[in-house]
Amino acid sequence: MQNTNAVHTYAVIMAGGGGTRLWPISRKETPKQLLPLLGKDTLFQSTVARLEKLFPPERILVVTVAEQAREMQKQVPAIPLENYLIEPAPRGTASVVALAAAVLQKRDPQAAMAIQTSDHYIRNRDLFHYLIRAAFDVAQEKYLVTLGITPTYPSTGYGYIQQGAALNGNYRYPVYVVERFKEKPDEETAQKLLRSGDHSWNSGMFVWRADTILGEIERQMPELFKVVNKIAGAWGTSEQDKVVQENWFDLKSQTVDYGVMERAERVAVLPAGGLGWNDVGSWDSLFEVLLPDMNGNVANNAQHLALDTHNTLVYSKTDERLVVTIGLDDIVVVDAGDVLMVCKVDQSQKVKDVVEHLKKHHQEKYL
Amino acid sequence: MQNTNAVHTYAVIMAGGGGTRLWPISRKETPKQLLPLLGKDTLFQSTVARLEKLFPPERILVVTVAEQAREMQKQVPAIPLENYLIEPAPRGTASVVALAAAVLQKRDPQAAMAIQTSDHYIRNRDLFHYLIRAAFDVAQEKYLVTLGITPTYPSTGYGYIQQGAALNGNYRYPVYVVERFKEKPDEETAQKLLRSGDHSWNSGMFVWRADTILGEIERQMPELFKVVNKIAGAWGTSEQDKVVQENWFDLKSQTVDYGVMERAERVAVLPAGGLGWNDVGSWDSLFEVLLPDMNGNVANNAQHLALDTHNTLVYSKTDERLVVTIGLDDIVVVDAGDVLMVCKVDQSQKVKDVVEHLKKHHQEKYL
Repeated sequence: MQNTNAVHTYAVIMAGGGGTRLWPISRKETPKQLLPLLGKDTLFQSTVARLEKLFPPERILVVTVAEQAREMQKQVPAIPLENYLIEPAPRGTASVVALAAAVLQKRDPQAAMAIQTSDHYIRNRDLFHYLIRAAFDVAQEKYLVTLGITPTYPSTGYGYIQQGAALNGNYRYPVYVVERFKEKPDEETAQKLLRSGDHSWNSGMFVWRADTILGEIERQMPELFKVVNKIAGAWGTSEQDKVVQENWFDLKSQTVDYGVMERAERVAVLPAGGLGWNDVGSWDSLFEVLLPDMNGNVANNAQHLALDTHNTLVYSKTDERLVVTIGLDDIVVVDAGDVLMVCKVDQSQKVKDVVEHLKKHHQEKYL
Repeated sequence: MQNTNAVHTYAVIMAGGGGTRLWPISRKETPKQLLPLLGKDTLFQSTVARLEKLFPPERILVVTVAEQAREMQKQVPAIPLENYLIEPAPRGTASVVALAAAVLQKRDPQAAMAIQTSDHYIRNRDLFHYLIRAAFDVAQEKYLVTLGITPTYPSTGYGYIQQGAALNGNYRYPVYVVERFKEKPDEETAQKLLRSGDHSWNSGMFVWRADTILGEIERQMPELFKVVNKIAGAWGTSEQDKVVQENWFDLKSQTVDYGVMERAERVAVLPAGGLGWNDVGSWDSLFEVLLPDMNGNVANNAQHLALDTHNTLVYSKTDERLVVTIGLDDIVVVDAGDVLMVCKVDQSQKVKDVVEHLKKHHQEKYL
């Protein structure tokens, strides 16, 4: 990537999560990001492909859990092994970000990083590249930069970012001071935020210099700062594993939004419209991203025979079974082999209630 | 069975059919009547159990095709082997009835027979027994007696029987001369027939003396009469198979309704209300017969986890798969192993269109 300023740019992919809302396809052992949900490539592979235009593979880091790292290395062999940072146990995105920043800072004191999720979809890659470049320009000025997504409907599923005054500076894209971060709103509030014109969805994508974010962490989460510095100090030495094991588990779990961003000093937002961003966070989100036929139907993998069927997604793990639908509207049919799910599209958020139910009733084999 | 008159009563079960409207569970090799659709027993077993109160097993005949006979003998070992009449190829119910009458007549010149289907459900067995007894009384007087079903909704799926004047005679149940047989009506006509009060559904259950029906067949279908007499003459001899093979295939296919009943001379109907008759002819019919839970749902075999689901039938060939439904109303989910079908209840008649489609596209493995 070409930069006119002095920072060295890296990407950090956060990839430890589960994604139970795409159950029964997304499972503990094969979480969402490792599945080819949108075609041939897995979401993780697409994420890397999207980043490779900006970052050579040796500048892409992945923070994940041990169980997923092996499969990721298989899916994307180009990223060097030493670029995988393994969380011994999940301690929230604040810990992930702090660890990545500390390790990177030690490796390269001029490091700046784009924090990326592993399991989202972005249709417009060129715009994405343009925005990330613009964000690095702003980050160079010691801002914590967030990529906001211009809302297209009154979502109650995302957090919101309210923008304040425009930043002065000769940036290639409009940038605003962040006025406030807001938690997931209720229906009525979401309607207001949508109409307000100055709110973006919090996409979980951030861009900053390692020293800037570490400065904020030192100020707001000194305990975390101490731990990740200790770990970074031992990183790449024979002591690494021991130091990680001794310190990581005492960390308290915290998100970067709540733990750092909400009270940080120099926070900016780039409100991105037209990015075609989708968090693929539920069956109806996934459905939105897939290309339907003239009846609005999508069949992924499955042999689908549709009679009087409209706006129906048939999602199958294999193409072995014939799926016949008759007289259906707005239905999701998921065939995961051992589990079959049939769900009204607009109720697909309730999948997580099913997962809770199965946990409670000790039906681990389905999780 | 106790009879005050001279006829010897037999039951003849017609069991050669396929039942494609319960596809994908009902298949060529495992047709509807051989499946435990309503619990532990198959429809064929239930049919025999219902008849055994009136007829000892040696008085129950089964007309079927060779492929099904073996499985039937397994399911109901009590019926003697010689009571199975094998159709070498399907030639319609007229041929079945004629063959059974000719063979029975030869075996027992005083035979009277109740023609029964193998794949219907009757909830009220006591009333059924009462009606069959009453029908034999009428049949004794050389009537062709049909059991009519009092309509409960404007069905366009059944033929109708219009009753005329009441028969004189000291019968234990009201009997009427048949005014007319009517083909399956359109929606509007069905509404009229339902309101008329003098129309019954044609259930396909008949009671008559062998000599009466053979007399009508001789008069109306002399070719068929000749063939079945020839076959009956050789029945039980070493010539039997040869004579059947030589003559059966030339028969033209015809239903007993159209070929005999519509123009027969002495035809009577017993209009049966409250029999709880159901032809289990489609998924919505089957659904009607099964006992739902308080949300109107039925799960047969399947482990079913239902969220906000109402009036939904989950029918599975095995209990191996977990079936989850969310936000569904009036849906049938059928898991046949290699085929998965999801269908709006009131569109389940369209299953036969799917079967046609598969035939046309040579996907025999699913039929």
